[in-house]
Amino acid sequence: MADKTALRVGVLGAKGKVGQAICDAVDAAADLELAATVDKGDDLDVFVTSGTQVVVDFTHPDVVMGNLQFLIENGIHAVVGTTGFDDARLEQVREWLAAKLDVGVLIAPNFAIGAVLSMRFAQAAARFFDSVEVIELHHPNKADAPSGTAYRTARLIAEARAAAGVGRSPDATSTELDGARGADVDGVRVHSVRVAGLVAHQEVLLGTQGETLTIRHDSIDRSSFAPGVLLGVREIGSRPGLTVGIDPLLDL
Amino acid sequence: MADKTALRVGVLGAKGKVGQAICDAVDAAADLELAATVDKGDDLDVFVTSGTQVVVDFTHPDVVMGNLQFLIENGIHAVVGTTGFDDARLEQVREWLAAKLDVGVLIAPNFAIGAVLSMRFAQAAARFFDSVEVIELHHPNKADAPSGTAYRTARLIAEARAAAGVGRSPDATSTELDGARGADVDGVRVHSVRVAGLVAHQEVLLGTQGETLTIRHDSIDRSSFAPGVLLGVREIGSRPGLTVGIDPLLDL
Amino acid sequence: MADKTALRVGVLGAKGKVGQAICDAVDAAADLELAATVDKGDDLDVFVTSGTQVVVDFTHPDVVMGNLQFLIENGIHAVVGTTGFDDARLEQVREWLAAKLDVGVLIAPNFAIGAVLSMRFAQAAARFFDSVEVIELHHPNKADAPSGTAYRTARLIAEARAAAGVGRSPDATSTELDGARGADVDGVRVHSVRVAGLVAHQEVLLGTQGETLTIRHDSIDRSSFAPGVLLGVREIGSRPGLTVGIDPLLDL
Amino acid sequence: MADKTALRVGVLGAKGKVGQAICDAVDAAADLELAATVDKGDDLDVFVTSGTQVVVDFTHPDVVMGNLQFLIENGIHAVVGTTGFDDARLEQVREWLAAKLDVGVLIAPNFAIGAVLSMRFAQAAARFFDSVEVIELHHPNKADAPSGTAYRTARLIAEARAAAGVGRSPDATSTELDGARGADVDGVRVHSVRVAGLVAHQEVLLGTQGETLTIRHDSIDRSSFAPGVLLGVREIGSRPGLTVGIDPLLDL
Repeated sequence: MADKTALRVGVLGAKGKVGQAICDAVDAAADLELAATVDKGDDLDVFVTSGTQVVVDFTHPDVVMGNLQFLIENGIHAVVGTTGFDDARLEQVREWLAAKLDVGVLIAPNFAIGAVLSMRFAQAAARFFDSVEVIELHHPNKADAPSGTAYRTARLIAEARAAAGVGRSPDATSTELDGARGADVDGVRVHSVRVAGLVAHQEVLLGTQGETLTIRHDSIDRSSFAPGVLLGVREIGSRPGLTVGIDPLLDL
Repeated sequence: MADKTALRVGVLGAKGKVGQAICDAVDAAADLELAATVDKGDDLDVFVTSGTQVVVDFTHPDVVMGNLQFLIENGIHAVVGTTGFDDARLEQVREWLAAKLDVGVLIAPNFAIGAVLSMRFAQAAARFFDSVEVIELHHPNKADAPSGTAYRTARLIAEARAAAGVGRSPDATSTELDGARGADVDGVRVHSVRVAGLVAHQEVLLGTQGETLTIRHDSIDRSSFAPGVLLGVREIGSRPGLTVGIDPLLDL
Repeated sequence: MADKTALRVGVLGAKGKVGQAICDAVDAAADLELAATVDKGDDLDVFVTSGTQVVVDFTHPDVVMGNLQFLIENGIHAVVGTTGFDDARLEQVREWLAAKLDVGVLIAPNFAIGAVLSMRFAQAAARFFDSVEVIELHHPNKADAPSGTAYRTARLIAEARAAAGVGRSPDATSTELDGARGADVDGVRVHSVRVAGLVAHQEVLLGTQGETLTIRHDSIDRSSFAPGVLLGVREIGSRPGLTVGIDPLLDL
Repeated sequence: MADKTALRVGVLGAKGKVGQAICDAVDAAADLELAATVDKGDDLDVFVTSGTQVVVDFTHPDVVMGNLQFLIENGIHAVVGTTGFDDARLEQVREWLAAKLDVGVLIAPNFAIGAVLSMRFAQAAARFFDSVEVIELHHPNKADAPSGTAYRTARLIAEARAAAGVGRSPDATSTELDGARGADVDGVRVHSVRVAGLVAHQEVLLGTQGETLTIRHDSIDRSSFAPGVLLGVREIGSRPGLTVGIDPLLDL
């Protein structure tokens, strides 16, 4: 479906489950062309010979730094979902980029646009409401309660309220059956529901006199990273240097 | 709006907030006619002289027994929302009714049809799903958590599952921030949310492989008893004897 | 996981997608044992030699009648999800069963317990509320709007209200942008939402003065037939003769 | 509850329903003090003599311009919910303010923070999702479908998608019962639900591969303007000149 002006995209870790999903998504996009794919043992040079402009890397912490060094040196932008980036690694990437001022690298722990947006909206709205609570709902095989996302969301909400001088949500509970009011994360109540047939869902409920605002995110399969990766692929060329997280691309 | 065949309805406690709402509801119903109203100090004889067929009583525990004795003796059906009925009082009403075989009395603690139906549906569905949890959401001035309705709903669910030999909902939680998984009511998790701008809401979430069923009740003002009272008024004439709760009228 | 008292279950069409899911579900159930599986070309005699008590049939309209004749003649109960049963076929099955009075056969077009329950609850509740509307939400590749389930649900609601003498839902709309108020199915409004990321969802919204009751069903993968099939497997032995649809098993 | 550093607030139209609610809200806020109230026939001078710093005006189009001229000339900030401001009126207010550079005036058609935020979030998120539809739900006495807010929301969404070069939401519907797919507002589908027991609710549903984001606003009584008015009262002192709508105060 690609035309002549299509962006030439390469995929690293192309035979993995995630890599395949990304190849499919690139194939299906009219403005993108799948120029080259590489998996374990393949030579990275194919990205150069094929004229690849952006490479997506969902590989392994052991190999991702080598990949990035090669790509940056060869002037190819990168969109990275591989995990394991600590401050030292980010610093190293910045150094490489300092020598190649027109190259852009995006490293993100979470490409689900809906999850990122809902966290941002909750954070932006938190200071305008008397009350805010978080309900996260997952399948019953999940080991931790609350979920990492809910925990992070509650902390962002708490920070936003503290910065604006907003106090705790009102709560007149005087008789409580143990646990009924949920967990307390920096003063924000978080409730963890575990029900078969669910996947991964989160609701932030904000309320003030006479009105409530609900921000809900439902994720039902792991392919939900694909739109975020494509957004990164399309935008990273115009964002030289290192970008961490997809938030800056969302332009809120 | 009443026609000749309209049922003649009387209201006891007619000047109270609830009584007035019931008078308004009767007035607005084409098949009912407001025949007589009585408040503190008024004579009950007006119900007899006006040919009243059914009387609604939202008064006070101190006077309701006298009211009922009068109504039953005079062959007038009664729909009662007044509180304070213990076993001894119910037994006394049954005795009076034994002497008047064609009179019907309905005594109910909760006339909100939606609340009663949602409890019944949750109970009926409970044994067909691997998981079930209850989320109740109220305004932040509520003193108890969970709400009485949520507590009762959870117990009915637990009984229905026990009777069918269904075990506890699956739950792999191994790391829990204190309270995140809610309160445990006979093995059913109950979560209590308190947010400004809410009134009284409850959600029963049932799930099994690949599907969930949600039964949600939202109550936003106290007038939600009116439709249940009118249902009682229309039906009690064909139900001689004592009926406790509106469940039997719902014919599920 | 099976013990000595486990019910011995056979699967016809065992290599198909649905058949495999059922084999997995039987394997995972402590009270059931997978006794024999048969696919295209295999001999049905294995059900007899293995002492199979109930057979699940998700095969093809061309072969299902032959399968049923064999199973009934050999005193084996059957749970059938294969399509294509018209009145003539059902009559034929009844005839075969008339000669084997202790055998039970369940034929159902829909084994999703949540879907069947939500339809039944909507039908039961419909006459107690002033208003009722149906919202169905599906992925955007769906060709028909409303969905077949929503259409059927709306008709059952309309029938229940007509039988109880309840009129149309109130609606003061005087200025409408074409289509805003949805489709009219026997006087019940039905709204069809199509959004990427959804699978198959339906909400019945009932309301009266001050309160609403919502019955929502979410189905996110096709495995949602498995619990209904297992319910059928466990119950059909005590229901001799022909049962159509899983409703009678739900005992509402 | 006011302390010495409390902001001194005046209310115009103080005996109206809205005015009284605002007086109550000011009274209940620790950082605000109700300095003076004025109703029809009262002299505006009391605002000057009482040292009022900000005046809230919910009066009538016939008198609001006179009120504003007086307030601006006397160096008092204003928060205005009175309707009827066309371009000519706004221009006149700007002229008066040009002579008093330190005075701020906020004129807003809608003070419900939740409504304004949900519109803004929908607009911000619209370009990142394949699909977006709007569902608005109201009481059945509403005359127009869709609601003005839903219509405006859909247009903002359509504009945001057009500006980002995003096409129409995908929709494979080939068989439609008339109206099922809702109204088409600039290519965005809008569904209007009318059910007794509801007040005013709106849901924007956005979806892409594997995930959906829902932004829902519920308004259950008309007091929901109060928090927005107080926000305006607190902020207008640091925003000289004319501000139209509360959006700029929300700092998104």
